[in-house]
Amino acid sequence: MHVGTSQVLSNKLKEEIWSHKDEVDTIIGYILEGDGHHGSYKRLARITDGFGHRVSGSEALEDSIDFVMAEMEAEGFTNVHGEDFQMPNWQRGEDSCELIEPRRVKMPLLASGSSISTPLGGITAEVVVVRSFDELADLDRSETEGKIVVYNQPYEGYGTSTAYRGHGATKASEKGAVAALVRSITQFSVNSPHTGQQYYQEGVEDIPTGCITVEDAEMLWRMQERGQSMVIHLDMTSLTDGMMTTRNLVGDLEGTSFPDEYVVVGGHLDSWDVGTGAMDDGGGCAISWEAMVIIKKLGLTPKRTLRTVLWSAEEQGLLGGVAYYEQNQDLVPNVSIMMESDSGTFRPLGIGFSGSDEARAIMREILDMTSALNATQLGSEGSSPDTGDWVRAGVPGGNLINQNDDYFIFHHSEGDRMTVQDADEMDLCTALWTSVAYVVADLDELLPREDNSRK
Amino acid sequence: MHVGTSQVLSNKLKEEIWSHKDEVDTIIGYILEGDGHHGSYKRLARITDGFGHRVSGSEALEDSIDFVMAEMEAEGFTNVHGEDFQMPNWQRGEDSCELIEPRRVKMPLLASGSSISTPLGGITAEVVVVRSFDELADLDRSETEGKIVVYNQPYEGYGTSTAYRGHGATKASEKGAVAALVRSITQFSVNSPHTGQQYYQEGVEDIPTGCITVEDAEMLWRMQERGQSMVIHLDMTSLTDGMMTTRNLVGDLEGTSFPDEYVVVGGHLDSWDVGTGAMDDGGGCAISWEAMVIIKKLGLTPKRTLRTVLWSAEEQGLLGGVAYYEQNQDLVPNVSIMMESDSGTFRPLGIGFSGSDEARAIMREILDMTSALNATQLGSEGSSPDTGDWVRAGVPGGNLINQNDDYFIFHHSEGDRMTVQDADEMDLCTALWTSVAYVVADLDELLPREDNSRK
Repeated sequence: MHVGTSQVLSNKLKEEIWSHKDEVDTIIGYILEGDGHHGSYKRLARITDGFGHRVSGSEALEDSIDFVMAEMEAEGFTNVHGEDFQMPNWQRGEDSCELIEPRRVKMPLLASGSSISTPLGGITAEVVVVRSFDELADLDRSETEGKIVVYNQPYEGYGTSTAYRGHGATKASEKGAVAALVRSITQFSVNSPHTGQQYYQEGVEDIPTGCITVEDAEMLWRMQERGQSMVIHLDMTSLTDGMMTTRNLVGDLEGTSFPDEYVVVGGHLDSWDVGTGAMDDGGGCAISWEAMVIIKKLGLTPKRTLRTVLWSAEEQGLLGGVAYYEQNQDLVPNVSIMMESDSGTFRPLGIGFSGSDEARAIMREILDMTSALNATQLGSEGSSPDTGDWVRAGVPGGNLINQNDDYFIFHHSEGDRMTVQDADEMDLCTALWTSVAYVVADLDELLPREDNSRK
Repeated sequence: MHVGTSQVLSNKLKEEIWSHKDEVDTIIGYILEGDGHHGSYKRLARITDGFGHRVSGSEALEDSIDFVMAEMEAEGFTNVHGEDFQMPNWQRGEDSCELIEPRRVKMPLLASGSSISTPLGGITAEVVVVRSFDELADLDRSETEGKIVVYNQPYEGYGTSTAYRGHGATKASEKGAVAALVRSITQFSVNSPHTGQQYYQEGVEDIPTGCITVEDAEMLWRMQERGQSMVIHLDMTSLTDGMMTTRNLVGDLEGTSFPDEYVVVGGHLDSWDVGTGAMDDGGGCAISWEAMVIIKKLGLTPKRTLRTVLWSAEEQGLLGGVAYYEQNQDLVPNVSIMMESDSGTFRPLGIGFSGSDEARAIMREILDMTSALNATQLGSEGSSPDTGDWVRAGVPGGNLINQNDDYFIFHHSEGDRMTVQDADEMDLCTALWTSVAYVVADLDELLPREDNSRK
């Protein structure tokens, strides 16, 4: 199956990898059947039940960072600290959206992150609905000028459809619209609005924007199809109030042989301000932190330093990830692998990996060694939101491939709660994540890069 | 496959049934490929987009009844009228539920129908969570007295789990609780509360009650498991303000040979006051009304009168169904079949039927004749909420079996919107519903009953 990757490894290296088999089995047994059972789930539940959502700029995020740091200190980790960075202080206000004609209906609305507010008293305007940017482009300016543009784009996968939330306001503003409302980016809805960041464009007038539900977007579309004219009253007080400070969280389990070399595992502790960010990305944080705890509890002593980074302000455009890279890029030669889990901690399927062929062959061996978890896929892309800069700089990257088909049903909505998490599935994720991190951290050499140089 | 039913029919009767094959094909063709295409979907969308939800006691319900009556008059139906009945005037107020300890969290709440309000200023009380009535029964009274009981019962199917909403307040009150909060009855949630009727019991003190989300019920359960003490502030102003009048809607397509004999098709036009009642039960109303329209448009002239009844106040405990039976029970000998669709209009699978063996054999032939719809199941139970009294009185009953696995995800929630409906699936439902109603209405004889007498 993976002929052509395994063969690049020397027998000596293969032997070195497989010499960790007993420890890996111990890790897996400890999590699935031992004292570590449901540990990451319980850890996550304590955070989400205890602090709720943790949007950047909130007291809850800062409190949860303090909480995790105190716990990590108590657990005996070293170098536990926050690393400050600046971010725009966007605050969600009281935002409302009401259909006035042809019928009065209050429509759930979540302002998109970075949206400006409406003028005092709100905006009352006619509505024009489009299903795509192409449809918008085809409209005469007279059909959009002074109106509220509603996007009723079909869901074509997050990567494609999210462009409407990200750039819908700008495209509508270019056509003279006074506001843009975007159908929530999800494949399944119980009238649930989903939020997320949006991006204004230099030289185009900023207009207020937010997400309505799939149900309401479709209703407005039907009304337009029937020839009914629609008027919406939009009142938004969300706004950006200067800059503010937040922090990434760092904690280490110091390596025994190469303390200045690193295996980094993490997720982003910040969430959107709906639900409790259990899935996005509490789960990634929980399995990363738990990995460190398990390795320490089992008395395992990896040669390299195992570092957990819990990034902040991922949701506002990867701000924490960018800041961590800027503040730590001198470590590029020293990081063996940068692993972030940020696409769910449902049933694990394997590891996505970016790196050299030889490093990939090492990952292949490790996944074969953990095949009891039935998660042996080795994906071709190991980058993740907060690790992109590192991977682009040549650092090997790993992420968690998991059965996350329902991810965008809950993503950035009130539905991102512990209920979507399964304690047994999280155990499997934790076992895989811990095993991979431990073995890579304990190898004699850093994962080999393209140029094959040590540092 | 259905040996033992078909054989009870005379060849003459079989021939009579199959003599309608051309008309049935015409009906199916008209709906699937002709002018009737998507007719029931559009009809439903006009009602739900035009009036929104139609809870009994609301102006929207009365307006929608007026609208449908006017349309039916315009479409040339006869005897179009409303039939008044009395119902309790329960009005949803401003209801809120906030967790105060261990953390302040506003929890979505929908008061259950008929709930009393809290005392002025609300109730602030400790919380005890149970997962079943048995767990509640096992608690010492000191553990429940003066507290808010939260039911975190698992979803074990609507029929089983709905007992917690229906009788949770009474059971909690018997143990001295001051309020009862019930986990919403659904198998899948995006933090969506679901409402529904509840029933107080004579001799047990009424306490306020409503439904919270699955997510919050599970969170409270976890907090209790951790030994955290919880306090909730509940403020509800919902209340019953005497009695009021509402109406069932009746409209006829008069039979050519037996105008005083009936085939009744219908659904309930009222809904809960969340979503727009597209699924529960706008769909059943739409396919029934559409069936009449199609038969008339195609110039078909059934021997018996085809009647549409759109019941009201089904959600408050089948009040419209009971009233219609009480006001029309002299028709028991004259109704060939009473058909209500009230479990969704998703992809049709067949017809549920209650009646004599011979009548069942007739239904079998009709379903074979409509086999192009791939909906040939003949279920053993043909009763429906509003037709139960008729079926118990010996009138044959029919309902629509459909692929409604997701029904309770949307049921009584904001998610009961047009988005759950599929226009093509509704066409299939309409074609089946129309064909069955037409053929039964055009047979020489009423569907035979157990005693085999004509009347």
